[in-house]
Amino acid sequence: MNRRRVLVTGANGFIGRHMLGPLQALGDDVYAVTHSEPAEELRTAVHWCRADLHDAAAVEDLLARVRPTHLLHAAWFVEPGSYLTSLENVRWVSTTLGLVEAFRRHGGRGMVGVGSSAEYGPATEPCREDVTPLAPATIYATCKRSVHDILARWSAPAGIGFGWARVFNLHGPGEPPSRLVPQLVRAGIAGAPFPMRHPGQRRDYLHVADVGRALVALLDREVQGAVNIGSGEGLALRDLATQVGACLGTSIALGEPGVEPDPAPTVVADVTRLRREVGFTPQFSSEEGLRDSVSWWMAWWNAHSDSVLT
Amino acid sequence: MNRRRVLVTGANGFIGRHMLGPLQALGDDVYAVTHSEPAEELRTAVHWCRADLHDAAAVEDLLARVRPTHLLHAAWFVEPGSYLTSLENVRWVSTTLGLVEAFRRHGGRGMVGVGSSAEYGPATEPCREDVTPLAPATIYATCKRSVHDILARWSAPAGIGFGWARVFNLHGPGEPPSRLVPQLVRAGIAGAPFPMRHPGQRRDYLHVADVGRALVALLDREVQGAVNIGSGEGLALRDLATQVGACLGTSIALGEPGVEPDPAPTVVADVTRLRREVGFTPQFSSEEGLRDSVSWWMAWWNAHSDSVLT
Repeated sequence: MNRRRVLVTGANGFIGRHMLGPLQALGDDVYAVTHSEPAEELRTAVHWCRADLHDAAAVEDLLARVRPTHLLHAAWFVEPGSYLTSLENVRWVSTTLGLVEAFRRHGGRGMVGVGSSAEYGPATEPCREDVTPLAPATIYATCKRSVHDILARWSAPAGIGFGWARVFNLHGPGEPPSRLVPQLVRAGIAGAPFPMRHPGQRRDYLHVADVGRALVALLDREVQGAVNIGSGEGLALRDLATQVGACLGTSIALGEPGVEPDPAPTVVADVTRLRREVGFTPQFSSEEGLRDSVSWWMAWWNAHSDSVLT
Repeated sequence: MNRRRVLVTGANGFIGRHMLGPLQALGDDVYAVTHSEPAEELRTAVHWCRADLHDAAAVEDLLARVRPTHLLHAAWFVEPGSYLTSLENVRWVSTTLGLVEAFRRHGGRGMVGVGSSAEYGPATEPCREDVTPLAPATIYATCKRSVHDILARWSAPAGIGFGWARVFNLHGPGEPPSRLVPQLVRAGIAGAPFPMRHPGQRRDYLHVADVGRALVALLDREVQGAVNIGSGEGLALRDLATQVGACLGTSIALGEPGVEPDPAPTVVADVTRLRREVGFTPQFSSEEGLRDSVSWWMAWWNAHSDSVLT
């Protein structure tokens, strides 16, 4: 069998960079696309290509040059604080549809796109790909869901295998520092109480390295359609805070909970497809994964102590 | 109040050309976009602009030049026989999202897009915009539904009024000749039996001139979100054949019905929003509308008698 040529977009991002090692371990020829400077430690590992994916001519050039057999499309607008509401999401729909069409024209065979648990409507049970209704509540989730729906119809006539990773919550090195786990670590180090509006909210957390491995496994196994990427375990956020505290050898006091009703009490993945069809099991146990993230963030906050104090 | 500058895409198309007169009657300044040569009788009525909407630079130029306050976007891939399954639908999603974004940047205030009854899932009752589940079964309908979902989320942060016309069945002068009403007229003239697979299928037919008027009314009244464009009356296709025959002074024999189950027995519009919120009532009664179409098609087939005989 010929070696696969895999184009990875968003390769320098939080999730994307964790797909590069697993792809190389499979023996794939990896072409990593980024618009920004790749992180130091990633520079020599793969073929790096600089391109602005919003530039249709640049995409055409890139695809004509690389002629990838496979595509792992992780690039999207992910600015913390604004990604859920930004009109940039609409631009990424067009950019994604243009990219996959160029991929098809230049001989592409199989792809995986990155979706989100936010595509699902409110649920009390773990979300199942073929059962739980989709009801995105933000422009971000609506755009992700639309890309899924369109590519699911496009893939057969286009002759392209299509997997769609619905990623649940994640944590790990390099996450935006404003997000929950880094902020819990920050509070734990500072001995400050942590304001948590909905401590009973149940979420499904996976270490980003396992998310990267799961995406690569999904591409490799050629499972078609949406597959949840999660641990399958619902963790109440108050218990997450307790576990982060335990990793730090402290306990994190939670502020008074909010009074407004919780719009999404339970967002947990049913991982039957991920386990049985993709054959994927996380390498980290949930405790090990959290310990790894917490120790990375402890070092990071200590190196950025000005940020801890502000 | 300043005069509105209305950009009409697909202005030379089956529906689009029926929007030009009603817009002018409202006193709007009308800019009609077409990629092809405008029909003879339409040439002097409005400002015609030639542009390929798939060309982002051409769209940018057009919007910068016209700076429309309003947009009636009727252009799409509509090739009979292939429009339901073609990958061109995906291209029109990107083209539409790019167009509306250029419209927003250049000061646009309100728009109407053209959707389809095919966005709805199977229903036994008339389809209601806020009740009947969406469940598109083709790439065409999936792409239309995705544009609706995305623009419904985009419109508020973009500051653009957004109406979405879910058009049901229609007939009229200039329809593609391969479609049902023209083919019934052809069979009636030739005295040939007409093969009809599902004579009990109920559909909702409106004359294209009323569809054009309804779209203009939707833009004018600034009703937000999806609005069904239909007659509100379910007509069994066997009765449509009878009525066409009556207009021709003949009766059309139907072939043996198909044996496969009917995938969509009833596709009828609930027109409550169209009547109450848009305030629109068709000018043609259903009998008058059909008589108008049939007499146009009778003349057309007689002028194309080689086509009748093949």
